[in-house]
Amino acid sequence: MENFEFHRPTAYYFGVGRENEVGAIIKALNKHKILIVYGGQYCISSGLLDRVQASLREAGVSYVTKGGVVPNPRADLVYDLIDLGRQEQVDFVLAVGGGSAIDTAKATAMGIVNEGDFFDFFLKSRQPLGCLGIGVVLTIPAAGSEGSCRAVIQKEIEGDVYKCGLGCPYFVPTFAVMNPELTKTLPPYQTACGAVDMMAHVMERYFTNTPEVSITDRLCEAVLSSIVETVPLVLREPDNYEARANVMWAGTLAHNDTCGVGREQDWATHALEHQLSALYDIAHGAGLAVLFPAWMEYTMPHNPLRFAQFATRVFGINMDFEEPKRTAKAGIMALRQFFKDIGMPLNFADIGAKEEDIPQMLRLLGVDEVNTIGHFVPLNRDACETIYKIAAHYHE
Amino acid sequence: MENFEFHRPTAYYFGVGRENEVGAIIKALNKHKILIVYGGQYCISSGLLDRVQASLREAGVSYVTKGGVVPNPRADLVYDLIDLGRQEQVDFVLAVGGGSAIDTAKATAMGIVNEGDFFDFFLKSRQPLGCLGIGVVLTIPAAGSEGSCRAVIQKEIEGDVYKCGLGCPYFVPTFAVMNPELTKTLPPYQTACGAVDMMAHVMERYFTNTPEVSITDRLCEAVLSSIVETVPLVLREPDNYEARANVMWAGTLAHNDTCGVGREQDWATHALEHQLSALYDIAHGAGLAVLFPAWMEYTMPHNPLRFAQFATRVFGINMDFEEPKRTAKAGIMALRQFFKDIGMPLNFADIGAKEEDIPQMLRLLGVDEVNTIGHFVPLNRDACETIYKIAAHYHE
Repeated sequence: MENFEFHRPTAYYFGVGRENEVGAIIKALNKHKILIVYGGQYCISSGLLDRVQASLREAGVSYVTKGGVVPNPRADLVYDLIDLGRQEQVDFVLAVGGGSAIDTAKATAMGIVNEGDFFDFFLKSRQPLGCLGIGVVLTIPAAGSEGSCRAVIQKEIEGDVYKCGLGCPYFVPTFAVMNPELTKTLPPYQTACGAVDMMAHVMERYFTNTPEVSITDRLCEAVLSSIVETVPLVLREPDNYEARANVMWAGTLAHNDTCGVGREQDWATHALEHQLSALYDIAHGAGLAVLFPAWMEYTMPHNPLRFAQFATRVFGINMDFEEPKRTAKAGIMALRQFFKDIGMPLNFADIGAKEEDIPQMLRLLGVDEVNTIGHFVPLNRDACETIYKIAAHYHE
Repeated sequence: MENFEFHRPTAYYFGVGRENEVGAIIKALNKHKILIVYGGQYCISSGLLDRVQASLREAGVSYVTKGGVVPNPRADLVYDLIDLGRQEQVDFVLAVGGGSAIDTAKATAMGIVNEGDFFDFFLKSRQPLGCLGIGVVLTIPAAGSEGSCRAVIQKEIEGDVYKCGLGCPYFVPTFAVMNPELTKTLPPYQTACGAVDMMAHVMERYFTNTPEVSITDRLCEAVLSSIVETVPLVLREPDNYEARANVMWAGTLAHNDTCGVGREQDWATHALEHQLSALYDIAHGAGLAVLFPAWMEYTMPHNPLRFAQFATRVFGINMDFEEPKRTAKAGIMALRQFFKDIGMPLNFADIGAKEEDIPQMLRLLGVDEVNTIGHFVPLNRDACETIYKIAAHYHE
């Protein structure tokens, strides 16, 4: 186990009706003027935003509200929110929605108190000197941003779309309110995309070269197993609260690093996917569903026993002791089948991606002979190209 | 899943040499005068206390130090520490040692800033109005107190020994430094006692009547499996750092409520055990090793399938679909065997406990026809007596 630090001070308020406590929570934090950033129209049509605002008024907390968040959140909106936040002199930022709203809120909270262009921090050309506190009312279990130290924002610069992630302690939300009932308005496709996103967050932490961190292995397998069990239940029984509750909490655990301590993580597949969703504006989970199995096919020979462990422990596949590679491949097939069963795309065609755009994606990835992404198997340009092509050509 | 809150803001610094960072950590918290509370002589003979104090001096943080912590921590020492802490006007309390040192530090941190007898809070006759911050340098993976909101202190009142637990947010440590190498001085018996304590912490959260919290089930099974895998390695290969690291982190996860969210927990066995360790001054883990299997035998008929799940998922026992009770019983046998293999006592005789003392233990438990302990199966006086007798009489 490598030396590590683990500090995730988010206060979670989980369960039915908890969005009505937002006002009291924020008042107890001694905040007085907040900026609410919200996601889709459902936040309004469901009455959620009303309830949140009512609880703020009841607690004597002032607020200003702005929507406009879209999936694959844009820097444009963040700039507008920063202006609004400064103008209104807010002291806290509250996201109501899913990962896109949360990441937008995170970037805004940082931009408000730092001079210059906030996107510099995402490009890693500058370090932030502070950040406002961030709160969350979660409606979409997927990105795990409600408990993570990360945010992803995209910006168009001279014709290219840069989708950049930034991880830092400032981005760990102060609190997250999570009511599984709020996820009932989520269409099945988005529920499934969320499931893939969560599983990917765990798998980036599972495929590692750091040996003998069995506690973290077991935690990864626990969260993956739980997602595999409960997501189909949500899709079959949309009113099943218990299933939704399990999925929602699994999504948080998948990305707050509970499943990641003490070892090297990979993150190549996320980097590969960012180019897909930046170029085609698809759901992040959909891109991951197409790419992760392709990444697995490519990297499996590096450590077949790890993939066999994945297959046996997550999908209950019998271990083939004579030829572990068969078990490894069976695990990848099982993952593909699971993605298909929950309605996810399988290849480039399914997501409207084109093989001819691969060179552009590789260029924006910044990989070449020497500059690689990922750690489990460091991927140079050729390797990334191969993986994109596996994803492009896959068919059953 | 029941509504829940989860807030565990402890900052963990895990790995080799991290005790040398204590000064810098405390300085960054803006604390200036600390009270160090330490456990056994090994803290001195190993050089650990020296290293911690050196790092404090280097950071310009003043300190006063007092030892004297014993297993099953006493209120007497807490009163002395409160006096010392007030006299020295400390603003932070640092525990160096295991659960006993940490719980002593927690009680002290609370007692220093509250008037009157701190033990009132443990007796639940008063609420605390504040608490100093608490830090930990952990040497014994067992109690999980480095990440939990709980402390247990015992006090003799009019001839009876009261062993009382208190859980409150004030008791969540601000930081915990965890270096697995520091556990090398721990004798095998204490390592094993620690393993039982950790497993018990998970099992109190596993045997529940709240249905369908599969994510929490899976996390419990993950931590239990990891402990079962790695503790024997530590005992066989005392220099195996990886094994020690896994055990140490599992111990923390077992009791910081990661394995407990969203459902009812039991805690009867801990209450039963407190009477044993109060009366006989035995290691808490040793008492739990004798009692938990007895509690399981008694409660198994209430939900055999849950015990079958435990048996299959934690000990890899094949499910007997025709007669699940056989699997349930096999799981209890496997747990007993595991405890025996790591050197734990099996019955009252092994820990010097006497059947004739059962009435006294029952009296101090405060159970009768109506007043019960535990939630999985609420145990009245007769039930507690039965369980103590099962533990008294068990033999292979």
